[in-house]
Amino acid sequence: MKIILDAMSGDLGPRPVVEAAAKVIAEKHIEVMLVGKPDAIEKAIAEAGVARDGISIKEASDVITMEDDPTSSIRSKKDSSMVVALKALSEGEGDALVSAGNTGALLTGATLIVKRLPGVRRGAIGTVIPTGEGRSLLIDSGANAECTPEYLVQFAHMGTAYMAGTQGIEKPRVGLLNNGTEEHKGAPLQKETHQLLKAEAGIHFIGNVEGRDLAAGAADVYVCDGFTGNLVLKTYEGVGMYFSKVLKTMFKRNVLTMLAALMFKKDIKDLKSRMDYREVGGAPILGINKPVIKAHGSSDARAFETAMGQAIRFHESGAVAKMAAALAPDKK
Amino acid sequence: MKIILDAMSGDLGPRPVVEAAAKVIAEKHIEVMLVGKPDAIEKAIAEAGVARDGISIKEASDVITMEDDPTSSIRSKKDSSMVVALKALSEGEGDALVSAGNTGALLTGATLIVKRLPGVRRGAIGTVIPTGEGRSLLIDSGANAECTPEYLVQFAHMGTAYMAGTQGIEKPRVGLLNNGTEEHKGAPLQKETHQLLKAEAGIHFIGNVEGRDLAAGAADVYVCDGFTGNLVLKTYEGVGMYFSKVLKTMFKRNVLTMLAALMFKKDIKDLKSRMDYREVGGAPILGINKPVIKAHGSSDARAFETAMGQAIRFHESGAVAKMAAALAPDKK
Repeated sequence: MKIILDAMSGDLGPRPVVEAAAKVIAEKHIEVMLVGKPDAIEKAIAEAGVARDGISIKEASDVITMEDDPTSSIRSKKDSSMVVALKALSEGEGDALVSAGNTGALLTGATLIVKRLPGVRRGAIGTVIPTGEGRSLLIDSGANAECTPEYLVQFAHMGTAYMAGTQGIEKPRVGLLNNGTEEHKGAPLQKETHQLLKAEAGIHFIGNVEGRDLAAGAADVYVCDGFTGNLVLKTYEGVGMYFSKVLKTMFKRNVLTMLAALMFKKDIKDLKSRMDYREVGGAPILGINKPVIKAHGSSDARAFETAMGQAIRFHESGAVAKMAAALAPDKK
Repeated sequence: MKIILDAMSGDLGPRPVVEAAAKVIAEKHIEVMLVGKPDAIEKAIAEAGVARDGISIKEASDVITMEDDPTSSIRSKKDSSMVVALKALSEGEGDALVSAGNTGALLTGATLIVKRLPGVRRGAIGTVIPTGEGRSLLIDSGANAECTPEYLVQFAHMGTAYMAGTQGIEKPRVGLLNNGTEEHKGAPLQKETHQLLKAEAGIHFIGNVEGRDLAAGAADVYVCDGFTGNLVLKTYEGVGMYFSKVLKTMFKRNVLTMLAALMFKKDIKDLKSRMDYREVGGAPILGINKPVIKAHGSSDARAFETAMGQAIRFHESGAVAKMAAALAPDKK
């Protein structure tokens, strides 16, 4: 397979992209197309001292920045690395795309250029969250602040296909994020969605789940509107950061605590790698015709490597075809 | 002052209520009215071996349980400890009320019996959350799953009066919980509320705040609808519980780790007391004519003590009068 990498849109420029590409090529025997300014990419390859085997470069002279307006930049910056990469994906020059750029622009571009699957109302962003039990997918995690029950049912299908395909879960458990577990809970959006999900074929619906169930890994797929998803995810992240800070202060107090901390080195490393976005990979953009992975804006080489691994699994699992089958308009 | 205590509605029965009452009476020189079954209360007093000074008992033969329907139980269980306690508060037999009972029933009862302040559209539940910086109030944390911009502006006033009064913060910073800090972010509810809060006199509005700002203590008052508030709070709680579990496992692995853990005893204790609901106290029910504090259902004596401390501050601060002034209908 061939992965298309937007080499320019991450905060750290092409260097970590190039390093990750070389590593994944060597390990997984895939090909990579790097999209961006050839000079900058060549310079990064030389500086990183990596082999060029399996790497091709596609020129794009512009870059969409984090400050650019998502919708207008996709239309106006036709020669940006993100737009050129999305076009290459759409035209079959590669099998999957990884970009660390502007989330809104990538979602808009994926929708306008790669296009939604037939019957899909809205593309959505799934976020893989680390839990006590493993990993779960929260969908939508921010693309659509306002949703209808129909969107949410489609998100349930997308999440099911993605988690079944990439994580090998036979029947992913789908939970509806709500303000209580009882069937009648929530605003009209949740009440109506609950009834639809209960009746929907191909969804292993386990009912409403609450905020505290997230960290416990009560479901494999958590469905919600993008407004709720964004708030819940950022709260999750914020509390995690707060605890890390407390732990760090505690262990770094003096020589004795630092010595004692050595004893917990493995635990801290395990916890960190469980909670670290670099290990979790990027966020899949779901409901469109090809696999697109949004990597974290400040991704280093390790984070790009994980996101590429995710792109490989996304492609090889055939999750897109499964979503297409579940959501095809003639199915209804 | 006199605090009215619903002695029957908590998970642990009257015993912890009686213990907390005796302790707070001795320390703060207040009076307490215990509402419930006299036999059970007398038995708890005898078993706890506490003094009867300052304690009076008001009979109520029934109890509203956690399983009871909030609205119908308030109407049908006229002789329940919660209803009798709310009536006593409404009729001036005490200055503030603490109950560890059914949240929905307490909110409904506070609205129907103690009644909303003039001009107030909806009563709301505020939850005091521990943050890296101290304490903040999240309002509404679950009472109203659906809100209008007008409700949210009223919540901002309630939160401002409560935090100014009980925490001595001169101009509490009010943040609107949203899926991004930019002014145009959110669903229509947030967009409209943002504009109203910007123009509202008497509110120190600092703009939109995100989920990750919660643990960092970016604002003193976080305003949101009850659906969002419930999810965010429970996510917060869930991640906290997950980290506690990880820490416990880490420290209890073997004799050496247990010895090392001794070194961090104070840190863990500090962290625990910062995050512990028993130290944070209960949730004030805001927008009604008298101070009502909802204590955690499983409150022990320490938790009741903290909730009583909160009731004292709520009463003594005159926060209800400040809310009344800010929300009076003739003000507009």
